[in-house]
Amino acid sequence: MVSNERQVDVLIIGAGPMGLMTALWMAELGVDTCIIDDKGTRALNGRADGFHVRTAEIWDSFGIHGVLQKFGVRFDEWCLWAPGDDGRLSRQQRQSMMGLDISRMSTCTMHQGNTEATLIDAIRQRSGPEVERGVVPSSMELDESLVDDPEAYPVKLQLRHQRREDLAVWRTNSHSIRPGGVIQEETGKIQGVISSSFATKNDTIPSVSSEEGSTTTIQAKYVVGSDGAHSWVRRQLGFPMEGTSTDAIWGVIDAVFITDFPDFRKHCTILTRHGSILSVPREDGMTRLYVQLPASFSNASVTDSTMGTQIVAVARKSLFPHTLTYSYCDWWTIYRVGQRVATSFAHQNRIFLGGDAVHTHTPKCGQGMNVSMQDAFNLGWKLAGVIKGQLHRSVLQTYQSERRPVAQDLINIDTSLASVLASETMSDPVGVGQVYGRLRNYASGADICYPASALVASGTRAKQHLASRLKLGMRFPSHPVINHSSAVPIESQSLLQSDGRWRVLVFAGDVTNPTQLERVNRLGAFISQLMTQFRSIHQGQPFVENLIFYYNRLDQVEVGDFHHTFFPLDPSRGYNYNLIFADPPASLSRGRPESAHVQYGISSGRGCMVAIRPDQCVGWIGDLEDEQELQRYFAGFMRELLFDIVTVIETCEVIQLAACLLPAS
Amino acid sequence: MVSNERQVDVLIIGAGPMGLMTALWMAELGVDTCIIDDKGTRALNGRADGFHVRTAEIWDSFGIHGVLQKFGVRFDEWCLWAPGDDGRLSRQQRQSMMGLDISRMSTCTMHQGNTEATLIDAIRQRSGPEVERGVVPSSMELDESLVDDPEAYPVKLQLRHQRREDLAVWRTNSHSIRPGGVIQEETGKIQGVISSSFATKNDTIPSVSSEEGSTTTIQAKYVVGSDGAHSWVRRQLGFPMEGTSTDAIWGVIDAVFITDFPDFRKHCTILTRHGSILSVPREDGMTRLYVQLPASFSNASVTDSTMGTQIVAVARKSLFPHTLTYSYCDWWTIYRVGQRVATSFAHQNRIFLGGDAVHTHTPKCGQGMNVSMQDAFNLGWKLAGVIKGQLHRSVLQTYQSERRPVAQDLINIDTSLASVLASETMSDPVGVGQVYGRLRNYASGADICYPASALVASGTRAKQHLASRLKLGMRFPSHPVINHSSAVPIESQSLLQSDGRWRVLVFAGDVTNPTQLERVNRLGAFISQLMTQFRSIHQGQPFVENLIFYYNRLDQVEVGDFHHTFFPLDPSRGYNYNLIFADPPASLSRGRPESAHVQYGISSGRGCMVAIRPDQCVGWIGDLEDEQELQRYFAGFMRELLFDIVTVIETCEVIQLAACLLPAS
Repeated sequence: MVSNERQVDVLIIGAGPMGLMTALWMAELGVDTCIIDDKGTRALNGRADGFHVRTAEIWDSFGIHGVLQKFGVRFDEWCLWAPGDDGRLSRQQRQSMMGLDISRMSTCTMHQGNTEATLIDAIRQRSGPEVERGVVPSSMELDESLVDDPEAYPVKLQLRHQRREDLAVWRTNSHSIRPGGVIQEETGKIQGVISSSFATKNDTIPSVSSEEGSTTTIQAKYVVGSDGAHSWVRRQLGFPMEGTSTDAIWGVIDAVFITDFPDFRKHCTILTRHGSILSVPREDGMTRLYVQLPASFSNASVTDSTMGTQIVAVARKSLFPHTLTYSYCDWWTIYRVGQRVATSFAHQNRIFLGGDAVHTHTPKCGQGMNVSMQDAFNLGWKLAGVIKGQLHRSVLQTYQSERRPVAQDLINIDTSLASVLASETMSDPVGVGQVYGRLRNYASGADICYPASALVASGTRAKQHLASRLKLGMRFPSHPVINHSSAVPIESQSLLQSDGRWRVLVFAGDVTNPTQLERVNRLGAFISQLMTQFRSIHQGQPFVENLIFYYNRLDQVEVGDFHHTFFPLDPSRGYNYNLIFADPPASLSRGRPESAHVQYGISSGRGCMVAIRPDQCVGWIGDLEDEQELQRYFAGFMRELLFDIVTVIETCEVIQLAACLLPAS
Repeated sequence: MVSNERQVDVLIIGAGPMGLMTALWMAELGVDTCIIDDKGTRALNGRADGFHVRTAEIWDSFGIHGVLQKFGVRFDEWCLWAPGDDGRLSRQQRQSMMGLDISRMSTCTMHQGNTEATLIDAIRQRSGPEVERGVVPSSMELDESLVDDPEAYPVKLQLRHQRREDLAVWRTNSHSIRPGGVIQEETGKIQGVISSSFATKNDTIPSVSSEEGSTTTIQAKYVVGSDGAHSWVRRQLGFPMEGTSTDAIWGVIDAVFITDFPDFRKHCTILTRHGSILSVPREDGMTRLYVQLPASFSNASVTDSTMGTQIVAVARKSLFPHTLTYSYCDWWTIYRVGQRVATSFAHQNRIFLGGDAVHTHTPKCGQGMNVSMQDAFNLGWKLAGVIKGQLHRSVLQTYQSERRPVAQDLINIDTSLASVLASETMSDPVGVGQVYGRLRNYASGADICYPASALVASGTRAKQHLASRLKLGMRFPSHPVINHSSAVPIESQSLLQSDGRWRVLVFAGDVTNPTQLERVNRLGAFISQLMTQFRSIHQGQPFVENLIFYYNRLDQVEVGDFHHTFFPLDPSRGYNYNLIFADPPASLSRGRPESAHVQYGISSGRGCMVAIRPDQCVGWIGDLEDEQELQRYFAGFMRELLFDIVTVIETCEVIQLAACLLPAS
């Protein structure tokens, strides 16, 4: 092979949030990956900014949520403004931000540049790939005869390494516009998050790969097209985008506004006689405004450098009698409303599309970046599992079956919202309130439910009623529990780190009842052997982890009460003290009097077992005796589940038999 | 001046936690500083590890608490073990860790190397000095005729830059001891915090300053001696250490223990027939044990490489019938018990001592590093304020008057604890419980109360009864409040960042009462002018910040209700939305039903004003009308408080007069 030919397991095209999140999974799971981007730098300003609670949870699962806590701007309230009975603009409604009550996380905004920088750092810390910048694909071929061969590299691409002078760059629109309209250099930027925390990262300086000007042929097992709304990969595949668009035109602007409007540190929907405005608080005292522009803007262009001041002028008119000027503008753009979804998200389960490449919509739900990163969060572990020979290739079909309905729902809600906001007549507060009601839970990202598949058990294969509020197909919601060995409270969801492992959660119920404790410990023998059956990954850590939650106070239970599988010993690391948790009946953490058992709808007398996917999704629920069903669930998608499992089950049955005999003796 | 002579405002000798915390203040406040250390690297393992809640609060005030949250090992319970009635070792008591109920922070442990690395990073981020390593002072002279001259550099020192081969290094005792006693190389260290998070920092590689082998003369305005228990600076000053020592000898060891003792992830006091053991959980699955050694060890030496295994052997005997082996040992040492305090902490208010240089004691309270960093936290802002001409030099006297009693208290408690643990006869659980009762609040660091001084008002100069649970001289305790503009809850203490600013907190009470609102807004006019009187620091930010807390729900109050001083406009940064907070009567955050007003003992009908020092200490309390008393408080230690203040007061009186007239009109 000559030097400008390469083989790689996964080629990611496009290094925005979707591409970087995919690369993060690949780095975490040790998959050979190449990630390219046509631009010379990461995003520098403007663009996506909203973090909904599910995305924050996902970041926490990769250990990178601290950046959001430190630099993100949190806002907890949504306000609706509209003309009152006297015709004067006034606050009509105030309510908690969407999703606040269903997650331990908060909604916040953070600059897309910081988002990308954080993901790039996290990839580096895992020894993952550097983004190869200034690289554009020029051709892509799939050898369909090889798609089912796990060792094959069936996708062949030509990549062109651009010269520095030809680099595509982010159209920043970054004018430090003073009220007089004078455009200043970007160096006039006020200090803050962008300059202080990420300035040392050289990825704001345009870079090109070392093979500048040359062409590389790359053979990949899999390709991920995360190359945005104008996706080259999607166009190569010929997938059409289906949906609608309107003539409504909106301006978006990030600026430090000086105003007597009191709610720019909250999220507002402002309905006025001159058009609607949405506001979101941003870093460095900035606010992002989405401003509905009048019909006279129908031919407006982003190349018109006066557009920023024009957007503010429209906003000022709409907000009257409130004042509105600004001291600094970081970015602005204009867009036409359109909502479209690609007909397909994958080709032969070898080439995948995600993010803006398959769903475009208005930015007003603050959903684009969230859904994109969640696409990647769904795809990444499946791809890695298949490449590593752990999962059947058929698992890859669930990417489209799980994620395309999410995009379709998003487009439907966005269409409703855009329509009610952009109506020619005076907008209707009641209608907006209704749309926001639907948006509230959807936008959090925590309400998404994946349909039944090999990965989501259903019907008689799973006992939903044993944990009535842990929904099969939905993400595992968090609740405070207490580490048995350290007495430290911890959020249960934070135990489900994104390390590629599956988890079997044993809700043990009240183990001071000897019969219940016996049920739990009988299960321990089975789980012990089940876990050793799966191939190990992560330097000897088992592929499946089991956690146990007992419905008692700390001082009622000793670790020695449990089967040793719940308290395993590693010869060099010592005992694992992080698998047993108390879920006392009267936990008062976070003001919730009920326990996790009650919160999840689990009987403390009966308990249950729950299987959780690597992406925190509830996959299976069963009784403490349902080892065979659990094993069947895993066998439905895992390769190399050894036949010895049958022996295990038989052994368990012998134990069970012995247990039945005991009381009579 | 020739090249090997330098002038510097502050010279810090010793770059442990005390020295680095002092340097952090200097960097934050922009004071020209030099920090030297005789060793070639920061601490690499072992040594201090405990973070009590007050220290965690201080780290949070500098924005560096995230490291503790990410890498620190939290533990929330203390257990007392002793022989039961049957003579068998068993758990006798369990209680929440000290201080857990008086702070929003948790007790945790973190490797001293990470502590130092975090402080070094924080200093760098503030463009502060790099530690000059391998530098030892050889002479120090104070020109006493210049001590009162603010422009003088009265301390002259000779510094010797060591050659690499002569470097003092940390005696690490880092033997990866396997049970057979084979000493392995340090490279056998298991992965974890130390290797993964801080490995990229080159400060673990011994370095020497660029002037290797040469001598520098340095002239300093002030010198801080933070050079440890064998302090060269203290010996130069001839200050004796007063106190006691015993013959008791203890071993300390950090290791991954394999044991069926169930409580090594908590903090334990274990009283046995063969001596006492204290345990603290550590990173990477390690536990630190303090092991009382028998009299046969009276001649033991740290140079004996078998001492680690000998310490474990003693612990194993004491813990019987529990098993005890280990898979990895990171560090061990032995020490003799002694408790001593220096007779003085400062010389002519030009040379200061802190940390181990002035108080030595056993490590068993986990207090050494905490009290040392708290010494620095007390000293730093005073020193900077005097150097910058903001504070009278007399303020420096309060360093000794505030910190020496703390050290004396520490030594007294440590003596009691050491005595009860080391008693020749079987230790007494009741006695230990009593000492821990006293230790509990003291050790948190949140119960320290500084005596009356220019900085802590007392008697008729302050109205303690207006905020009966905000104690004059104590740190301001936290309570959740809600940002008026964003509706985001925030801990009140987190508003008091360590940026050198004083704060006037206005507890406004119920401002839906027009009379009360009028009282608050009348005060606004005064504060507005008071703030502009003080010299500005920090790029135009005022030297005093005022915050307001109203005892109402968010939806009862609009920002426009308040005087503009509570909602100031900066021409380029826009309005400051971070000064007005709701303290609603029914806040349910953190399970506390009461409001901050109630929590602090403040009447919602009357309100009060509270002045907070840059170190979060409550300095003054008064009525909303006590502007003159507040001004007198500040004038007691601030220079350049302009005479115009009298005009302000007169103006306020006119306004007050006008306000009196209004109702009659």
